Amino acid sequence: MRAAVFHRPGLITVDERPDPRVLEPTDAVVRVVRGCVCGSDLWYWRGLSERGPGSIGHEFIGVVEEIGSAIDGLRPGMLVIAPFAFADLACPNCQWGATVNCVHGGLFGDGTIDGGQGEAVRVPLAETTLVPVPGTSWSDAELASFLALSDVMPTGHHAAVSAGVTKGSTVAVIGDGAVGLSAVLAAHRLGAERIVALSSHADRQVVARAFGATDIVAQRGAEAVATVLEMTGGIGADAVLECVGTQEAMETAAAIARPGSIVGGVGVPHGVMPATALFGRNVGWRGGPAPVRIYLPELLEDVLGGTIDPGRVFTYETDLDGVVEAYRAMDERRAIKSILRVSEP
Amino acid sequence: MRAAVFHRPGLITVDERPDPRVLEPTDAVVRVVRGCVCGSDLWYWRGLSERGPGSIGHEFIGVVEEIGSAIDGLRPGMLVIAPFAFADLACPNCQWGATVNCVHGGLFGDGTIDGGQGEAVRVPLAETTLVPVPGTSWSDAELASFLALSDVMPTGHHAAVSAGVTKGSTVAVIGDGAVGLSAVLAAHRLGAERIVALSSHADRQVVARAFGATDIVAQRGAEAVATVLEMTGGIGADAVLECVGTQEAMETAAAIARPGSIVGGVGVPHGVMPATALFGRNVGWRGGPAPVRIYLPELLEDVLGGTIDPGRVFTYETDLDGVVEAYRAMDERRAIKSILRVSEP
Repeated sequence: MRAAVFHRPGLITVDERPDPRVLEPTDAVVRVVRGCVCGSDLWYWRGLSERGPGSIGHEFIGVVEEIGSAIDGLRPGMLVIAPFAFADLACPNCQWGATVNCVHGGLFGDGTIDGGQGEAVRVPLAETTLVPVPGTSWSDAELASFLALSDVMPTGHHAAVSAGVTKGSTVAVIGDGAVGLSAVLAAHRLGAERIVALSSHADRQVVARAFGATDIVAQRGAEAVATVLEMTGGIGADAVLECVGTQEAMETAAAIARPGSIVGGVGVPHGVMPATALFGRNVGWRGGPAPVRIYLPELLEDVLGGTIDPGRVFTYETDLDGVVEAYRAMDERRAIKSILRVSEP
Repeated sequence: MRAAVFHRPGLITVDERPDPRVLEPTDAVVRVVRGCVCGSDLWYWRGLSERGPGSIGHEFIGVVEEIGSAIDGLRPGMLVIAPFAFADLACPNCQWGATVNCVHGGLFGDGTIDGGQGEAVRVPLAETTLVPVPGTSWSDAELASFLALSDVMPTGHHAAVSAGVTKGSTVAVIGDGAVGLSAVLAAHRLGAERIVALSSHADRQVVARAFGATDIVAQRGAEAVATVLEMTGGIGADAVLECVGTQEAMETAAAIARPGSIVGGVGVPHGVMPATALFGRNVGWRGGPAPVRIYLPELLEDVLGGTIDPGRVFTYETDLDGVVEAYRAMDERRAIKSILRVSEP
């Protein structure tokens, strides 16, 4: 098969790789239908996060081609959504809601296992990892929304759940990348009354509005803090969703979260947490890699019901051969998020 | 009146100060019965935290001497417990559970208002701040436990509540100062099944055991982490209560908290939060200055009912003239916490 291979920052090629096969009775092989590029892949591309060479991409949907002997609930031909991490849902961490920390689990496309930016993937722990999609034919828009459920939408949802967003909440979302926009949609879905999106890009503001943002703050840093505090009577937002991970973003989050609230943080931290501000304001911080598998069923139900369309974050499409351009489009902010059309269901 | 006055690190004297009077209709004047020294006072004494000169001490119980015209629920002669912060319980922050961040509130003994290490205190917002103690006579042990409710016990409770301690929890408590020991008691009170106290001092281990600790880990740093992980099947504790605030304590907390759990942090942070470890393990962090006034009624009920005796953290007693020795005893770890006998009820 052919798959994108990360060699070093700035060098990804589409190479011939061994066809995935069932190695364990709990494995399945999935032919990739759609893959995409994650903001965290860009950190590797830019050389800002370390990783070894090998297959890349941890988001994909596809069709089951082959199953191991221990698998009961999957059949060849099924369309499935793969969470970015595989997990057994049985270990103490999974039982505690942290499926990404599954003691028998792992991450797709980390250099040691097939990635989603390729033609096929061996999926370990397939039965507890993959979520089948009902139906037999789907529009491109539906496929894009299913794909968004493999990471970006549940990650936004994780920020909202971690921050305790509930009906009537006033929410501030930091970051207008695909995760931040998904967090807007998640907050809206959970019934937030007011959603302030901190976004300085016109194209992203449009999606933020479409996803439920009631207010846009285009400023950054101290100016953004002053504006959000003014909008909230000097108190701050009931829930802040931090979807960036830079030091400025973390400091902004701590400053605009109302005392006693929780920041839902899903931006991989690349700075120093503002410990003193958080402590003094009694602001908590929760988050991490999203337990996608746990959130997937309820989010899929809403996609199938047509009440959310998280696939709108994909604004650039190409095929597997265009994978480098998919990275570049995001790196240069020409695209919010790039989708790879690898095959058809 | 006479009161302890902080001049600079290492210099506290008992000086003559103006007698407190009712200045606002919502004020009360309280004659101090017992005061004490907080771990955070020691940071000033040692010059590790900044503060201006003036009255010091934010923990006290006393007898109401005079009330303003707007006060209904207090009468001269009542024994009252003062939370370390005064608050109106009506502002948006109080309503959100963050009474220390009351927009009309403040802290006793911060240099601008009377402190608890003195003979009397003007208490602003007295009706919503002070909690009367029922009864007419109390033992010294009861008075000590009432005093512990002004800060240290509710602070330990805040750690436990913030971390989500519940019936059956496995809890690890970092810090064997008065707050850490109170956190042990709070976790026990909330029904924790296993309570691991990280404590290296024999005298404190005795109190930890008496307060409900089931296990003692006397190691620190990486050794303590390895031991707690081993005790918890490699997974970590359901809830970690961080009652120190140093960088080592924060790192230990992040390492021994199970994925998906929350660290309840009440140690004032004096280090860098381990952002990457917290994020990667999906471990949250909540805490800050405790909303004592909110917790006080339920804790007082248990003290009056004899089910908790938080006053056991006081292991050194002196009078107001001995205040410097009260600091020294704690600074040199001869005392867990020092109580000042200022007057009788």
